[in-house]
Amino acid sequence: MQVLTVNLDDRSYPIYIGEQLLSQPGLIRQHIRGRQVCVVTNETVAPLYLDQLCAALDGYQVDSVTLPDGESHKTLDVWASIFDKLLSARHNRTTTLIALGGGVVGDMTGFAAACYQRGVDFIQIPTTLLSMVDSSVGGKTGVNHPLGKNMIGAFYQPLCVLADTSLLTTLPARELSAGIAEIVKYGLISDYEFFVWLENNMDQLLAGDMAALGYAVKRSCENKADVVAQDEREGGLRAILNLGHTFGHAIETAQGYGNWLHGEAVAAGMVMAADLSWRRGAISSEELARVIQLLQRAHLPVKAPADMTPEQFMELMGVDKKVLDGRLRLVLLESMGKAIVTSDIDPGMLQDTFEACKAN
Amino acid sequence: MQVLTVNLDDRSYPIYIGEQLLSQPGLIRQHIRGRQVCVVTNETVAPLYLDQLCAALDGYQVDSVTLPDGESHKTLDVWASIFDKLLSARHNRTTTLIALGGGVVGDMTGFAAACYQRGVDFIQIPTTLLSMVDSSVGGKTGVNHPLGKNMIGAFYQPLCVLADTSLLTTLPARELSAGIAEIVKYGLISDYEFFVWLENNMDQLLAGDMAALGYAVKRSCENKADVVAQDEREGGLRAILNLGHTFGHAIETAQGYGNWLHGEAVAAGMVMAADLSWRRGAISSEELARVIQLLQRAHLPVKAPADMTPEQFMELMGVDKKVLDGRLRLVLLESMGKAIVTSDIDPGMLQDTFEACKAN
Repeated sequence: MQVLTVNLDDRSYPIYIGEQLLSQPGLIRQHIRGRQVCVVTNETVAPLYLDQLCAALDGYQVDSVTLPDGESHKTLDVWASIFDKLLSARHNRTTTLIALGGGVVGDMTGFAAACYQRGVDFIQIPTTLLSMVDSSVGGKTGVNHPLGKNMIGAFYQPLCVLADTSLLTTLPARELSAGIAEIVKYGLISDYEFFVWLENNMDQLLAGDMAALGYAVKRSCENKADVVAQDEREGGLRAILNLGHTFGHAIETAQGYGNWLHGEAVAAGMVMAADLSWRRGAISSEELARVIQLLQRAHLPVKAPADMTPEQFMELMGVDKKVLDGRLRLVLLESMGKAIVTSDIDPGMLQDTFEACKAN
Repeated sequence: MQVLTVNLDDRSYPIYIGEQLLSQPGLIRQHIRGRQVCVVTNETVAPLYLDQLCAALDGYQVDSVTLPDGESHKTLDVWASIFDKLLSARHNRTTTLIALGGGVVGDMTGFAAACYQRGVDFIQIPTTLLSMVDSSVGGKTGVNHPLGKNMIGAFYQPLCVLADTSLLTTLPARELSAGIAEIVKYGLISDYEFFVWLENNMDQLLAGDMAALGYAVKRSCENKADVVAQDEREGGLRAILNLGHTFGHAIETAQGYGNWLHGEAVAAGMVMAADLSWRRGAISSEELARVIQLLQRAHLPVKAPADMTPEQFMELMGVDKKVLDGRLRLVLLESMGKAIVTSDIDPGMLQDTFEACKAN
């Protein structure tokens, strides 16, 4: 097991990374301050791991809430159902909420912990690769509104995160790949050495090699923690974590949430960002090809949907193409392993990127 | 105009107290950082003061949300309607929410500001005496759940509070009295000199004398700010602000919310706390009589409802009377102007207080 500390002054917390962590009850129990625990999970994860977690919590008052699975259920109404359970089971201010699931469960549980009686303890047990390397670090919690993703939420840090790579053995291959997209992102934005490591170890990751997965999770969390420690509330630097996300969100919105996984849209979006970076002369054509090849090897899409026009992209990115100047900020590569945020974007180059990155 | 600063490190903020503050647009405008403002108010206050506030905000994008009036509407659903407006009017992260109303409006607006895009700016313009002296200080925001009051919320501080005593000229007499109950509380828990001032100035307060009201608001906020600065998140000391509230909540619950105003229930509850304090020997019978007389002069109830039995009180206070020891914590007086929190309560004395404080 490895332990990584996310440094946020009095809100610092450890991420435990390794195999079979759920079989070590002491890891979690040392962080529980009261006598009550409420596990929040979803329909997919509950049959797989809820019993094992409850067994590890023997002796506490343990209640659980099983939410419907999927981004479409990340709503205020579903979130409110967590409070129904907490109050009907008389949980007090010393209770601990444990999120057992992917990003949706983590975001909703963290936001519920932030608001229940104005703030109770919170522990995260991510069950997807994406949530291990993304929502484990950063403290962003919240729910969607019909008019926008993650529009309602809070910054709220967990007491600890248990990234148990053994849980990934039940993860569908497509979701493993989606998690790898975010891992590749860290290599691109801040860690070229890690990018090279990923080129050399992609086969092991896809095969579910525990040592490789553990290393990739740790190095990803380290990279994100470095950025977040410098900019907890997204004043500036933290924006580089959104490499590929502006294009990716446009794809997700156009296709309807759930048709493309978030990681898949980010993969295609990162190719678009890399393509535009190449057109600006920041990276070479060989480097662009390496980005594309690495994502392809992870079975991720590297083209935007064939039916998406440049006009649609611009509209979904919230920009009127006729008044581009200064209105669109994008995360691009300055070099392999270094990202920048810029609003100095050439409309012609952007147009060329849309054309070049569209599927046939 | 007087300015009081609530000291909370980087969340410190000013409370402006005086007459005709709404006619001085610069006071508010200096605290607005973006170009968008959303005023949240209610059906009662909107016709009285919304136009005046909007005029003061000339030049900004100003939207408004008018909520139904009353504690029964302090729900997640009504709260969510604030986000509907913010998103449909495209408010971004630099927007400022302004609460124009009493405690319910302030609590819901503050909680919406805490959660919209994970936190936006927030200004409070309390329109009742109670909210000027209570929710202006402390940062407690939130909504009720069917199973408990204020169970969902956040600690979130405003950028400034405008306590415009001119707004109190439209306040119903019964609500003015309810605000005075909380003012008397500050005298009892931490400021005997202020208690004496209230004995000497009660007639002026009830007559709506602006100078007297301004002084009472300022001194109340100072007292609360002192307590909150020492204990922002209610670790211990802050509990003394709940003098009379444990008994009072029981009365509110038994009678149904809205039948007794919060301040009325707190007044009767403070008499019960003072009565029990007298039985413990902490204050004299003359001092107890002065507490009762001052509240009576403010036209506040000083007896619990005739139909409430000791058993009902105990149940509503969450205590099984047979296992009282250590289970019930009450705020009592140690002397006039000094409160303590104790769980060392004699069941017989408590029983006597219930009997003595019941209306005939």
